[in-house]
Amino acid sequence: MEDHIVFRTDGGELDLLDQRLLPLEEKRFVCRTVDDVVSAMRTMVVRGAPAIGVSAAFGCALAVREAAKTSRWRAALDELLDRLARARPTAVNLAWAVKEQKRTIEQAGPDAGPDEVYRRLVDRALAIQAGDVASCRAMGRAALPFVPDNARILTHCNAGALATAGYGTALGVVRAAHEAGRHVSVIADETRPLLQGARLTAWELHKDGIPVTLATDNSCATLMSRGLVDLVVVGADRIAANGDTANKIGTFGVAIMARHFGIPFYVAAPLSTIDPSLANGSLIPIEERDPEEVRTVGTPERSVRIAPDVPAYNFAFDVTPAELITAIFTDRGALLPPYGEAIAALFA
Amino acid sequence: MEDHIVFRTDGGELDLLDQRLLPLEEKRFVCRTVDDVVSAMRTMVVRGAPAIGVSAAFGCALAVREAAKTSRWRAALDELLDRLARARPTAVNLAWAVKEQKRTIEQAGPDAGPDEVYRRLVDRALAIQAGDVASCRAMGRAALPFVPDNARILTHCNAGALATAGYGTALGVVRAAHEAGRHVSVIADETRPLLQGARLTAWELHKDGIPVTLATDNSCATLMSRGLVDLVVVGADRIAANGDTANKIGTFGVAIMARHFGIPFYVAAPLSTIDPSLANGSLIPIEERDPEEVRTVGTPERSVRIAPDVPAYNFAFDVTPAELITAIFTDRGALLPPYGEAIAALFA
Repeated sequence: MEDHIVFRTDGGELDLLDQRLLPLEEKRFVCRTVDDVVSAMRTMVVRGAPAIGVSAAFGCALAVREAAKTSRWRAALDELLDRLARARPTAVNLAWAVKEQKRTIEQAGPDAGPDEVYRRLVDRALAIQAGDVASCRAMGRAALPFVPDNARILTHCNAGALATAGYGTALGVVRAAHEAGRHVSVIADETRPLLQGARLTAWELHKDGIPVTLATDNSCATLMSRGLVDLVVVGADRIAANGDTANKIGTFGVAIMARHFGIPFYVAAPLSTIDPSLANGSLIPIEERDPEEVRTVGTPERSVRIAPDVPAYNFAFDVTPAELITAIFTDRGALLPPYGEAIAALFA
Repeated sequence: MEDHIVFRTDGGELDLLDQRLLPLEEKRFVCRTVDDVVSAMRTMVVRGAPAIGVSAAFGCALAVREAAKTSRWRAALDELLDRLARARPTAVNLAWAVKEQKRTIEQAGPDAGPDEVYRRLVDRALAIQAGDVASCRAMGRAALPFVPDNARILTHCNAGALATAGYGTALGVVRAAHEAGRHVSVIADETRPLLQGARLTAWELHKDGIPVTLATDNSCATLMSRGLVDLVVVGADRIAANGDTANKIGTFGVAIMARHFGIPFYVAAPLSTIDPSLANGSLIPIEERDPEEVRTVGTPERSVRIAPDVPAYNFAFDVTPAELITAIFTDRGALLPPYGEAIAALFA
């Protein structure tokens, strides 16, 4: 598939594939300001922890152009970067990318003008983008020994090319096995409320010619009990120091069911998703979104009301305890339990 | 709420609330022929095992009017009843109701004319309908000792007034506790693909003033881990002799998660849902429905495509093993494990 995050240096435009409209339409959403980028993140034009990080890195470059139009541009820039960092709370990559870019600004020195800072921010963002694809490929290689030929792989949400700069974390594991000549196939949980599995995972695998079968989130126990699932692999939005993993709501349930049926449950995530400052998953902030997302289904342009006007829970993520995770595939190799030690060693 | 299954004896009309259009519209679907009733069942105008049984009982009365127009009316009647019995495979109540009505025809004797047979079939169907409401109330009473004050009750799909002749099985348990003055509230799983929880359970409880909060099927583990669920109660489409229970797809997963968190998991079903001829749940036929139900969401009149054209699993039911069920509330009291003995005693 084509690149879904494209930055045009001259015009100062971040050009995103509008994921809200997939799989029905392939339209682009062009960001020229920090507010555009914040809105793209909040409304899910772009989503997935690594893709949010890359978009935020480019957003910082847009911020300096915006700030340059004001009299005290460095103060304005600081404020814009903080606004960007607060766009969504759960994925650690967003805060990480903005912090990286603050360092880039520092490294430019106090005398650098906005053009110089802009150039450096763009270069760093491009490096983060390329690094993300490379790290997805590294995760895929790390996972290869765990993915047998003919494996039927269940995944939840979209941790694919669309959730990263390209290639994917969980779907990077699938792509690496596919490229290694193994006959793998995927079961995509549809992933209510926003249906990233049905809309995005099914779309990008179908486009790449990898066999994919869609399933409602409700089908998991039945598919596992019928022997139709060999392993589970999901992405992550934040991983605590002990291996507890925040990911799309529903992941925790899949992990419980996998344990019940003795099916391996894997997480694929780059090092930048690990937050060693949090001792365990109870400290990961969990975003609650508008209940209207649950009372309706569809795209912004075509949605259907499916419920009366009653309250609805809408936690966007859940936290899977480390003890339910068989291994974590990172860009620095596969981690095995106990994760506390493995993670401490990586960050030592 | 008003009666959703109404039979008009003079005109020979079975007047059903069209559940496909809820909660947006309250329209009726009028059946005058067996084909109308079969189509109402297959397309989910009426659903829920007991409601299907009651509708089938009235459908048998329509069949005799239809058969009476032919020369060999008894042969035509037999054929129509068989067609009715085959409308859907999983719920035992459908086969049971048609068998009941075949007995009613036998009891009328070989000399009875179509008018006499029609009168008897209508009377029997009305008795089945009234008996169903009475049996729901009996289940609710049997469950009372298991439902504490302030209980937050999670339910899956719709085992409510709309799934029965009225009052409900799982929601009958809720209504009985509510009528007994207990402050109960309900979490309704939305229940993809056909969203009976969002469309029907939320609607009927909201209409009756019982507090209800909607949740995606993906929220279950998170809600349980946060201590927001005190007990689970669901209905059943068929229960085998050992207590294994077929119910809407997703129920099995909820039961596994309830066990993981030590939360009681109850089934509410009348005796007519128990099929003592099947030793265990592996023998219960599981309906597979059109994958298009998974690739789309909404109502027949307003649906949205949510996925590319890939294959999709669409098992309509799953089977929860007896060992995950804390108790079964029947119209003959609460059954406790081991269910094989308890069920054998009831049918002795």
